[in-house]
Amino acid sequence: MDPAGKARVLLIGSGGVGTMSCYALEVGGKASVTAVLRSNYDAVQKDGFSIDSIEHGNGIKGFRPSRILNKVPDATHEEPFEYIIVTTKNVPDVRPNVLDVIEPAVTSGASTIVLLQNGLNIEKPIIDRFPDNVVLSGVSIISATEKSGNVKHEFTDSAKIGPFPSLKAPAEKAKDSASRLVSMYNACGKVDWSIDDNVAFTRYRKLVYNASFNSVSAILHMDVVRMRMTRHVIDDLIRPAMLETIATAKAAGVELPDGIDHFMICLDPADEFFLPSMGQDAVKGNFMEVEVIVGEPLREAEKMGVATPTLKTIYGLLKGLQVKTKEAKGQWKPEFEEGNPYA
Amino acid sequence: MDPAGKARVLLIGSGGVGTMSCYALEVGGKASVTAVLRSNYDAVQKDGFSIDSIEHGNGIKGFRPSRILNKVPDATHEEPFEYIIVTTKNVPDVRPNVLDVIEPAVTSGASTIVLLQNGLNIEKPIIDRFPDNVVLSGVSIISATEKSGNVKHEFTDSAKIGPFPSLKAPAEKAKDSASRLVSMYNACGKVDWSIDDNVAFTRYRKLVYNASFNSVSAILHMDVVRMRMTRHVIDDLIRPAMLETIATAKAAGVELPDGIDHFMICLDPADEFFLPSMGQDAVKGNFMEVEVIVGEPLREAEKMGVATPTLKTIYGLLKGLQVKTKEAKGQWKPEFEEGNPYA
Repeated sequence: MDPAGKARVLLIGSGGVGTMSCYALEVGGKASVTAVLRSNYDAVQKDGFSIDSIEHGNGIKGFRPSRILNKVPDATHEEPFEYIIVTTKNVPDVRPNVLDVIEPAVTSGASTIVLLQNGLNIEKPIIDRFPDNVVLSGVSIISATEKSGNVKHEFTDSAKIGPFPSLKAPAEKAKDSASRLVSMYNACGKVDWSIDDNVAFTRYRKLVYNASFNSVSAILHMDVVRMRMTRHVIDDLIRPAMLETIATAKAAGVELPDGIDHFMICLDPADEFFLPSMGQDAVKGNFMEVEVIVGEPLREAEKMGVATPTLKTIYGLLKGLQVKTKEAKGQWKPEFEEGNPYA
Repeated sequence: MDPAGKARVLLIGSGGVGTMSCYALEVGGKASVTAVLRSNYDAVQKDGFSIDSIEHGNGIKGFRPSRILNKVPDATHEEPFEYIIVTTKNVPDVRPNVLDVIEPAVTSGASTIVLLQNGLNIEKPIIDRFPDNVVLSGVSIISATEKSGNVKHEFTDSAKIGPFPSLKAPAEKAKDSASRLVSMYNACGKVDWSIDDNVAFTRYRKLVYNASFNSVSAILHMDVVRMRMTRHVIDDLIRPAMLETIATAKAAGVELPDGIDHFMICLDPADEFFLPSMGQDAVKGNFMEVEVIVGEPLREAEKMGVATPTLKTIYGLLKGLQVKTKEAKGQWKPEFEEGNPYA
């Protein structure tokens, strides 16, 4: 707690989702947020964030978190952060990964780590490294984008927060920590975060969309409306990938509602060429969340003997594209083979 | 036959393969070639072709076929062509397709149609339309590229020529026609065309490479050496696709040699970043031979109950990319949906 009795929150990742989280927490008045900014650090230090928000209002100018840093702080030199909220992309196959990034800021046993990120098994490396800390799952439904300090928030901010099932910290402590965060968050009176009693369900449910639409949009650079117009992209790729994810969930003990595939296929509006986030990453040449969105579900499926042929091929292709991004960023180098490795 | 006793040959498609075929036939002195040119028509009319050839020599200047046209001639207005050699890409899902293109030039019962093209079932629409004509399969191994009348020919010109198994014209007539073409062709003394006694084998064998390397290179825009370097692109995509093609061939009665997958994986040199032709089409935004390289083998497999999950996903993705090319060329138009078609 800071001197004014507010919770000390560290927010890592100040894109659209992170900035809106920061805004809600600060406006709620129960948290003091230290935000770690990267590309937008200078712009925000100078002018603050400009925000147009469907919930908080348009034309918000000069918003500044309580404290702005351009790197993750070393927690040994200050009071522990009660919450560390991570809203970066999760790309474990690229260093620094999430654990690398948050590690210096975590006070063992004290900080609650909130992974407001997509994907499966993202908590595993964090819990392994910090078994005494509460690690919370956050699955966000918000459409918020950020560019150079300007944020557009276009869909209601409702996230589900709850303890990961594999948590090693005491369940009661985790539950309390989740409740306190949700109440701090909703204190702004405009948003609707809630407690997630079934994190596995929530994560697999979202994966039904992400493992299919995100993956295929990234390979094809194609939006959801075009996919539906072709028909075959839905029938031969999206729905099979969804059914494989649903079967994987079922084998893992998560029963998704009947017709969830149809629901997800119809989810996006018909009057907007919506390109899912991984598709946007692909178009921009950014790293993609291949492992947590496709790789981990696939490995779970294979462990449990669930057939996932569509996801397997999609995964192989996405990994191939990720290699190309690594090459473009100087992290992978093609060389003439010293003899063909297959020879 | 023309007045000088030479065979009248129509050559459709004057890229690298077509031009080298034309050159060999003209130099052999037993054929008089009418070449249909498109983008290079003006350049070749003015200066002829310039050719650097591994077999015919470098620095060949001003080569002109006996006759140059800028459109396919109407055979009702002239002597029948004894041979119509087609070296264009084969993209049946885009009009005009091969049948559309050659139709006016074919004299029913008289012209032998030679499809010097990749893929499966390419003869079907031709035989359906011209059941009395001999249709020959040509599977070429040649590395020849053409740009504005300049041809680079870098690998020996050895093609296998033989009657398609499903031919309706008399077998003897087809055999004679194939022999005559091969001998006319080899008359130049520099090349090595031969009779193909087992067209199904030859085509499936080449498909092992094409359905895998061509497809994946088109989706990833990645060359063969990079694929081998990643390892996983070969192990998770290329080899599974090859094994599915081999299983399809087997079900169709074509026994490919043991280890053909390994042979094909190692085929391309280790010191050259070779991008297969479909990959080149993808990079250039050209239409791809999706249907004859992947769609037809897949449909054959499904008819025979062969499991081809990798090819199925690859096919769906390639078809999605083909739609994007159609859109870019103004042949497909995305529209906001009148309601979501899946709703």
